[in-house]
Amino acid sequence: MSEIVQTETKQGRGPETIPPTTIHLSQPVTINILGASGDLTQRKLLPALFAMYVQKLLPDEFAILGFARRDYTDETFRQFAGEAIRQFARLPVESEALATFCEHVFYHRGDIEEYASFRSLYTKLFDRRLFPANHLHYLSIRPELFATVLSHMKASGLINPIDAPNWSRVVIEKPFGRDWETAHALNQSVLQHLHESQVYRIDHFLGKETVQNILSFRFANAIFEPLFSSHLVDHIQITAAETVGMESGRGAYYDASGALRDMLQNHLLQLMCLVTMEPPASMTADAIRNEKVKVLQSVHPLSDVDLKKAVVRGQYVASTDANGKERPSYRSEDRVATDSKTETFLAVRLSIDNWRWAGVPIYLRTGKRLARRVTEIAVQFKKPPLQLFQTVECDGDVCDLTGTSPNQLVFRIQPDEGISLRFAAKRPVMQVQVENVAMDFSYSETWQNQLPEAYERLLLDVLRGDTTLFTRSDEVEAEWRVVDPILKAWASNGDFPLAEYPAGSWGPTEADALMHGTDEEWLNR
Amino acid sequence: MSEIVQTETKQGRGPETIPPTTIHLSQPVTINILGASGDLTQRKLLPALFAMYVQKLLPDEFAILGFARRDYTDETFRQFAGEAIRQFARLPVESEALATFCEHVFYHRGDIEEYASFRSLYTKLFDRRLFPANHLHYLSIRPELFATVLSHMKASGLINPIDAPNWSRVVIEKPFGRDWETAHALNQSVLQHLHESQVYRIDHFLGKETVQNILSFRFANAIFEPLFSSHLVDHIQITAAETVGMESGRGAYYDASGALRDMLQNHLLQLMCLVTMEPPASMTADAIRNEKVKVLQSVHPLSDVDLKKAVVRGQYVASTDANGKERPSYRSEDRVATDSKTETFLAVRLSIDNWRWAGVPIYLRTGKRLARRVTEIAVQFKKPPLQLFQTVECDGDVCDLTGTSPNQLVFRIQPDEGISLRFAAKRPVMQVQVENVAMDFSYSETWQNQLPEAYERLLLDVLRGDTTLFTRSDEVEAEWRVVDPILKAWASNGDFPLAEYPAGSWGPTEADALMHGTDEEWLNR
Repeated sequence: MSEIVQTETKQGRGPETIPPTTIHLSQPVTINILGASGDLTQRKLLPALFAMYVQKLLPDEFAILGFARRDYTDETFRQFAGEAIRQFARLPVESEALATFCEHVFYHRGDIEEYASFRSLYTKLFDRRLFPANHLHYLSIRPELFATVLSHMKASGLINPIDAPNWSRVVIEKPFGRDWETAHALNQSVLQHLHESQVYRIDHFLGKETVQNILSFRFANAIFEPLFSSHLVDHIQITAAETVGMESGRGAYYDASGALRDMLQNHLLQLMCLVTMEPPASMTADAIRNEKVKVLQSVHPLSDVDLKKAVVRGQYVASTDANGKERPSYRSEDRVATDSKTETFLAVRLSIDNWRWAGVPIYLRTGKRLARRVTEIAVQFKKPPLQLFQTVECDGDVCDLTGTSPNQLVFRIQPDEGISLRFAAKRPVMQVQVENVAMDFSYSETWQNQLPEAYERLLLDVLRGDTTLFTRSDEVEAEWRVVDPILKAWASNGDFPLAEYPAGSWGPTEADALMHGTDEEWLNR
Repeated sequence: MSEIVQTETKQGRGPETIPPTTIHLSQPVTINILGASGDLTQRKLLPALFAMYVQKLLPDEFAILGFARRDYTDETFRQFAGEAIRQFARLPVESEALATFCEHVFYHRGDIEEYASFRSLYTKLFDRRLFPANHLHYLSIRPELFATVLSHMKASGLINPIDAPNWSRVVIEKPFGRDWETAHALNQSVLQHLHESQVYRIDHFLGKETVQNILSFRFANAIFEPLFSSHLVDHIQITAAETVGMESGRGAYYDASGALRDMLQNHLLQLMCLVTMEPPASMTADAIRNEKVKVLQSVHPLSDVDLKKAVVRGQYVASTDANGKERPSYRSEDRVATDSKTETFLAVRLSIDNWRWAGVPIYLRTGKRLARRVTEIAVQFKKPPLQLFQTVECDGDVCDLTGTSPNQLVFRIQPDEGISLRFAAKRPVMQVQVENVAMDFSYSETWQNQLPEAYERLLLDVLRGDTTLFTRSDEVEAEWRVVDPILKAWASNGDFPLAEYPAGSWGPTEADALMHGTDEEWLNR
């Protein structure tokens, strides 16, 4: 058990620097980015690919091919790429590394709506000296074009069959459908051209370290798993709160999407799955995704009553911050309809009808322009069966006796990634009184390395063919099944109010009603 | 649930300073210290009483009466007290406070072996202006004299019956007996003169904050209690390691006592009781002591085989430290017999035959001149049922794959009082690997106040009549019952070797044999 000594020593000497990951990818690859002139390519994909290059997480032979309509040459696209990387890299950029990286970058000018562009792409990729025969196609394009593009790709011979010596993999960015029906139709058309194992539906949330740590925490330890069930858990709260509004023209996309499609249907449901799923038979992609699908399929369908009582949508209105500065209303934001009914806040109470979780409410909440930027999962336990101790609560020097507070386990996804366990400990006073304290585990205090960007991790996984962190077709449809009744209800003529909340607040007070009749409250912190 | 916000805020702003305890003791008291010229009075009792005075934890009317043979007057004893307090106080001493405190200090010269001294004491205490009628008698005397002194006290009228308007309470210092028989006889003679509720058998270990926190941790939280049983716990290790040897003439007492009587029979068994006992019906003294006695009575009696295989005693021999300095052997220490067979190290494996703990080994270990000063309880959990993850262990930059390490919960009694939970978390690397990390709760990081001295807490409890932290007669006898077979075996002519270990080491290697056949090792850290 010498590791204990080491762990302790490590704890004593501050954060550990983890040596660079040594993963040798032997398969040469061409990474073809469709929509290469767009925002995602600039801000995320190119910087992530460069970071991977620097960390030696790309194979020795690789090409990055930008595909878009804009009038770039290889040369000018390299300039575009270099500028994007300098601007958005998470690590310092060395000019020499950037220059050699850019030698791998190429451009293919064409219209992704036209078949001819794909034929010429096919011909171009024939030059195997420049373009390795394994193809990663990254669809950073409008979702309406997915079906057309995939059909062109297939017809032009760009998709290798799964038994071919060289692989083709396609990454599809969200949103994947607008409801169950469109998602289902999209799946059908995707799977007409691709095998499921070739499809990588990306949700960058799943690339975050803390999200991945949820499974490790639950299943690499013997003591937490027995606690995760209706016997001991009172409820679970999952919050993804943002302080941003519609900066950088985000309004155009967001106003057509809303909090449900943008955050709840994908990110929040994924977090719910990870924290509630049964232990998988193994850590393989399908074993894990099977368990997630089982959770989604066990979600109790929202009844008509639920749709009125267990779902609260809101939209922010103008407010003034502490410095007297005006925060705009959603409807006055750039590229938002002045009579928009899009929800910028959503709170939902779900329940999972399985043996483990029956009777445990799951609260999901997300919104724009909220009081704080925080994404976290709080597992709130029941109170001790017997109240043996006096609990003291202090605000500064003013202390009061109060009831026992329940234990709470919090997974912080962002910011300050970590895990925190709240429990009661004896106060060092002459009475037997307990007070709530916390044990914390912090990523940054434990490991000195900057956490890898989610896109680096996810692109690497595509290169090594690991689909664990990507959403399977049945999974994405199961997610839509959960929220479809909400979309249908809102689209009906029924009475589903859009509550107002001041920009910068914790959302509409109507959301508190979800917890009426319980001891609980939203954790606004 | 606003306390969550407060707790979090507090966490953010560093340790909390807890305002002074406000306990108003209304009953005037005379504290009569028998053996007032001794070491304990000087180092612990007088400083503790002064600290209580400063913290307003003594009643308005109180007297402290030193009783010994030495030739003091009130005046010279006050000087003695003042010097002791200045030398051993844990808080800064203000002269004015010390002067007013000393006005309450008196001296009674007499021989505690003579009845006449008690009669004159009785007469002296008649002066109610100086000496309040509630009496706390503190027996800081040789244990051989307990019976005589109590008989003199009773005969001279110093012990009020329990239904009298004024109370008498007697604090008895350890050791309480040398084995079950002497402890039982002592109890009989004590209870001949006193009611059980008047007896306070003191074990200063129980006055420590972290020791008291064990019960709060287990029973003020809902999530830990379900983990504490044979279902999930692999074994429990309780270590009380000291680096000191026989400094300050300690050898005289120690050589006649040894590790079993000095530490294991009382301190270690008490810690074992607290960490394994069932939840009490209430936090009253008798409810808690009932549960502790049940644990002691459930300890599986040590068989002849156990006495050879599950008990290891040792004695330190000379060694050289890292600086080339010689560490003396036990037998060459001051006031130790040169052929002494007294054990300075003891390790014992016990098992508790009750529903909760059957099959879970409990390892107890204590010793002098060990490698580090540490007192802790480590609850080592079983491994996860399924090994889903790769575990990585690092020593500096050199990392290796290894098996899953079990979770571990550690109560640190001293130094650095706190609680630490070891668990596995995902390393922030591109593979799914876990590493052992720890969540810590530290007293000093949470609460700024210095922890009160155990004696302050315990004396306060005597004044308020709370016997929770004192050992009841049946409890002390049950403790002796556990260790009596060891004493009997050693006293026999059987073959029970006294293993040697180098001073400054972790004890004899023979102790490792207790864990043979298991995956476990002593936690030497």
